Amino acid sequence: MEPARAVVRLYDSTIPSGNGYKVRLLLSHLGQHYERVPLDILKGETRTPAYLARNPNGKIPLVEFDDGTFLSESNAILVYLAEGTPYWPADRLDRARCLQWMFFEQYSHEPNIATSRFWYYTGLAGGREAALAEKHQAGHAALGVMDRQLAQTPFFVNARYCVADIALYAYTHVAAEARFDLAPYAAVRSWLDRVRAQPRHVTMT
Amino acid sequence: MEPARAVVRLYDSTIPSGNGYKVRLLLSHLGQHYERVPLDILKGETRTPAYLARNPNGKIPLVEFDDGTFLSESNAILVYLAEGTPYWPADRLDRARCLQWMFFEQYSHEPNIATSRFWYYTGLAGGREAALAEKHQAGHAALGVMDRQLAQTPFFVNARYCVADIALYAYTHVAAEARFDLAPYAAVRSWLDRVRAQPRHVTMT
Repeated sequence: MEPARAVVRLYDSTIPSGNGYKVRLLLSHLGQHYERVPLDILKGETRTPAYLARNPNGKIPLVEFDDGTFLSESNAILVYLAEGTPYWPADRLDRARCLQWMFFEQYSHEPNIATSRFWYYTGLAGGREAALAEKHQAGHAALGVMDRQLAQTPFFVNARYCVADIALYAYTHVAAEARFDLAPYAAVRSWLDRVRAQPRHVTMT
Repeated sequence: MEPARAVVRLYDSTIPSGNGYKVRLLLSHLGQHYERVPLDILKGETRTPAYLARNPNGKIPLVEFDDGTFLSESNAILVYLAEGTPYWPADRLDRARCLQWMFFEQYSHEPNIATSRFWYYTGLAGGREAALAEKHQAGHAALGVMDRQLAQTPFFVNARYCVADIALYAYTHVAAEARFDLAPYAAVRSWLDRVRAQPRHVTMT
């Protein structure tokens, strides 16, 4: 397999972003150094013509490689960097299960837990009570699905920590900031400890 | 690479689902036969104990393999089936770009265009005017990002049709059912024609 390009720059958020943290956590596991460029989303720094030329979708995280190319979408970046390392499964069905949990994360988890957290964090929660209530219910459903899996296996894909765990750890470990109580999810709480115990783990802030 | 397990059964929706159609389209390209099991989501057929034992997240599509295992999340299923075929890129960065567009589809496109379509389709749109207006704006932003890419390359990842095109075709080609007008997106409309011209293309219904 061809080696991964080296990440020279990570465009991240000044407000602590779980999606940016995913990439920082994997790069720490891999022992790679890079420049972090924090952008203020609320001031429109991801909507400037210069930034949109790098990522037309106007979001962080975005990585810039040593050959001047760019890659966006946190979970696509994780897979790109993890291929050929212990963080990406060797078995074909295990790879698919890893992706299954990463798509679950972006569809069923992040829009509920991360978006609620962002609204509370930035003072945008006021007046969004109905939307927050829907997100609260859907976020708890996602936590329940996670807990059911983690009661059976120590990590999302069997016994081995992989990029699906990194993707789901990012916003689960700060779920309290989105007013989600993890007390009912014993298997999730044990898994959070196992993730924190991985070599070269770094915290979000 | 180990061969993919054979799909014996695809759990799909009675209401035409783009997420289910993605899997049917790829299986048609690959010339594979399977049983389709349509479920009525509105009658709770994806929330029964029997179905939740197969997919704890309670969603379609879900594939059942010949060894009795299951895989959910439409885009994870696409990647699993496409590995080792012309529908999954051979180049490492191209694979990551394919995933980048698939995560874009599930985060920036599907929740806006597919969810709006589902609401209109099922009569749930009434009383959701504010949410529909937000989804209309975000969906048009996603179509703009797609159009910008497709003005530069014939498919999402350079010149070759891959599973990212299948993922994004599913709900883009029925965007009118969600009251999105594709007239301003000339590059998207040309790409829809190129997708339809692929060998063994099948329609959604």
